[in-house]
Amino acid sequence: MKLYKGHFIDTPMPGSFRVREDSIAIVEAGKLLSLENEVPERLASLGVTDLGSGVVIPSFIDLHVHAPQHMQMGTGLDLGLLEWLENYTFPGESRFADENYARKSYPLFAAELLRQGTLRSVVYGTVHSASTLILAQSLEQAGLTAFVGKVNMDQNAPDYLRESSDESFNDSETFCRKLAGGERVRPIVTPRFAPSCTEKLMKALGHLSQRLSLPVQSHLSETLSEAQWVSQLFPESRSYTHVYDDCGLLGPASLMAHAIFLSDREIDLIVERSATLVHCPSANINLSSGIMPLGRYLDRGVNLGLGSDVGAGHTLAMYRAVVQAVQSAKLLRILRPRENHRAVSLSEAFYLSTMGNGQFFTRQGWGPCGAFEPGMSFDALSIDMGLPEAVQLSPVGQLERFLYAGDDRHIKKRISAGREL
Amino acid sequence: MKLYKGHFIDTPMPGSFRVREDSIAIVEAGKLLSLENEVPERLASLGVTDLGSGVVIPSFIDLHVHAPQHMQMGTGLDLGLLEWLENYTFPGESRFADENYARKSYPLFAAELLRQGTLRSVVYGTVHSASTLILAQSLEQAGLTAFVGKVNMDQNAPDYLRESSDESFNDSETFCRKLAGGERVRPIVTPRFAPSCTEKLMKALGHLSQRLSLPVQSHLSETLSEAQWVSQLFPESRSYTHVYDDCGLLGPASLMAHAIFLSDREIDLIVERSATLVHCPSANINLSSGIMPLGRYLDRGVNLGLGSDVGAGHTLAMYRAVVQAVQSAKLLRILRPRENHRAVSLSEAFYLSTMGNGQFFTRQGWGPCGAFEPGMSFDALSIDMGLPEAVQLSPVGQLERFLYAGDDRHIKKRISAGREL
Repeated sequence: MKLYKGHFIDTPMPGSFRVREDSIAIVEAGKLLSLENEVPERLASLGVTDLGSGVVIPSFIDLHVHAPQHMQMGTGLDLGLLEWLENYTFPGESRFADENYARKSYPLFAAELLRQGTLRSVVYGTVHSASTLILAQSLEQAGLTAFVGKVNMDQNAPDYLRESSDESFNDSETFCRKLAGGERVRPIVTPRFAPSCTEKLMKALGHLSQRLSLPVQSHLSETLSEAQWVSQLFPESRSYTHVYDDCGLLGPASLMAHAIFLSDREIDLIVERSATLVHCPSANINLSSGIMPLGRYLDRGVNLGLGSDVGAGHTLAMYRAVVQAVQSAKLLRILRPRENHRAVSLSEAFYLSTMGNGQFFTRQGWGPCGAFEPGMSFDALSIDMGLPEAVQLSPVGQLERFLYAGDDRHIKKRISAGREL
Repeated sequence: MKLYKGHFIDTPMPGSFRVREDSIAIVEAGKLLSLENEVPERLASLGVTDLGSGVVIPSFIDLHVHAPQHMQMGTGLDLGLLEWLENYTFPGESRFADENYARKSYPLFAAELLRQGTLRSVVYGTVHSASTLILAQSLEQAGLTAFVGKVNMDQNAPDYLRESSDESFNDSETFCRKLAGGERVRPIVTPRFAPSCTEKLMKALGHLSQRLSLPVQSHLSETLSEAQWVSQLFPESRSYTHVYDDCGLLGPASLMAHAIFLSDREIDLIVERSATLVHCPSANINLSSGIMPLGRYLDRGVNLGLGSDVGAGHTLAMYRAVVQAVQSAKLLRILRPRENHRAVSLSEAFYLSTMGNGQFFTRQGWGPCGAFEPGMSFDALSIDMGLPEAVQLSPVGQLERFLYAGDDRHIKKRISAGREL
């Protein structure tokens, strides 16, 4: 049993920050037993770890990130999605055919996630199984918790990355079986997006996910031109969302990134299937894709999460994704006044990056996480902005300042399931 | 005479980055004499300072920043402009009635500008002359170059900040005379914005600026509600822009921040008067104000600059303002497709933060600056992203990565007029 003292802030509900100052977290076997005002008498003999005079928050979770693209992060962002894939991303991903390159690159990615306080993530590798296993090892060795996917592409990809349907499926099955049941790193079925996968492959992957009880991740309706392309490629499906549904890829274990241009019928289907949509604001702005109507989806009861989407997003720092989610909702509201979009508060965006994203892990059979509730994995960051005496801020003020103006230097401790990393 | 070796990147013109690899800058009396491929024979006896294997760029310039608001940076940003002023900004500024508070706070602001590589700036203080002189000293002592303004407010301000018209004017005149002709820090006339100044005061300040040949800064058309308020307060002026013009405050030495909602007639007047508009994208997004049509103004030949606008902007880092300028132009283009806005490239936004902003200093009789042109002040930052071997980027790629994903740790040297700070 361990005791931690600090000013705890979390968002069990999106509408506001919950602050518990000067409290004691009682942690057993990596889980929070309770948060108390003082050390209970029966535990008086235990030492208390002081998490400092700043604030303690749930550690960040990233629901959508491409590990190989960490290498190209921040470059080529004057392009749109399809040109950017062709000129930057696909050539960059092809380098992971070389396992030595993966051994050099992926530990840097894992170290950067850790540095930024992202202790759980759902990660894309490349089509290369061997390199993607190295990615999984790198995350595991850094003490991080993650789902990792070997990417599938059996059409509309450059020759140097395109797989045959059988090879793509077989490699995926082998990959998934190797990682299944891992303590901290597990597999996720990862058809890149509908344009780059044949129906045959997607249906086989749908079966695989059901057979092995594995989650699924893909991209959905990121740009208008891509959505039009999908309607040409899959004329028998009623919509882009229906393509995935028709292939058995849409369910409570599905993560769909972007989802900017959905019809009401598609949103209904997402809600009906209890799939999770992942908002990736930085990427959507950088590639001039559009802005997900986040406020509307929140009000419709869609399962929602937040992703950095590096490398179209330009930073792995989820606190920057939180701010970009707030900013893009503001811009959607003021630039499209007739559509009656609403603002998204800082607490709602922070909720997505912790509790909202945590619910995806919870639903996949990992214990609950994302806030400081009894029974949840004790995943925490202690934040100290090192504010000078002249700046007096409340705990929420300190958190706001960290989210907007802080960086990894202000994260003083990173705790995953009660273990300091 | 000093020699510096490095890979130099600048933007003498906005359309593209100019790269001069492995070059030697010859600097005399703080100014660049020339950039050569190698050390000229006549200078062979001089030592060469190696600026590293990264890139060397002109140091950043911030044309709009509120020093007292550095204390509140990153907080209260779920509000709109007028509520934010009332609840966060005015109470925060009132603390500067106490010179001891200024002595504690302003050196922190100056240190942060320096840390972020912003070696020139145009800065608002508060209504308090004594504290604003301390601000000027703090900037001077940090080795920074700046214009500093004592703020004027003689109406529509809270009692605890409102001055009488005479007091406001007299304090300004005394303040300006004290700083006039300073080596590095000089005064700028600073009526806060039309709503908070009577016509009488603004006209007197207009005369003052002409009499002492001083520049002027203010805010223009930041939000629609403010613009409507101005039309009620000044019914005899043809527009918000005309209010300043009618008071003798609009000319080649005038900086007007925001300028989001201007009519064509107002833009014509800005161009005719050769005034400079300062784009403050972070602030405009954070306070849900709107987005300046930057591409349109660039194409109209308006003098343009870029500002952090801390505290409505949430960081003093001008490289983040560069990215937010690019991002907001993208969003304006895609969210308002019928208005035919164009994208703004990274080089255009970088140009604003260096060469564009530098032209304001140049026009005020300070020597030219903002790029690596012969005769310009040698103001430079050496940038090293510390990229691992696995990431191979061109010089422009390194600069892109710094602008999007770097921070102050990647700024290795800060040189102002040939002097390392």
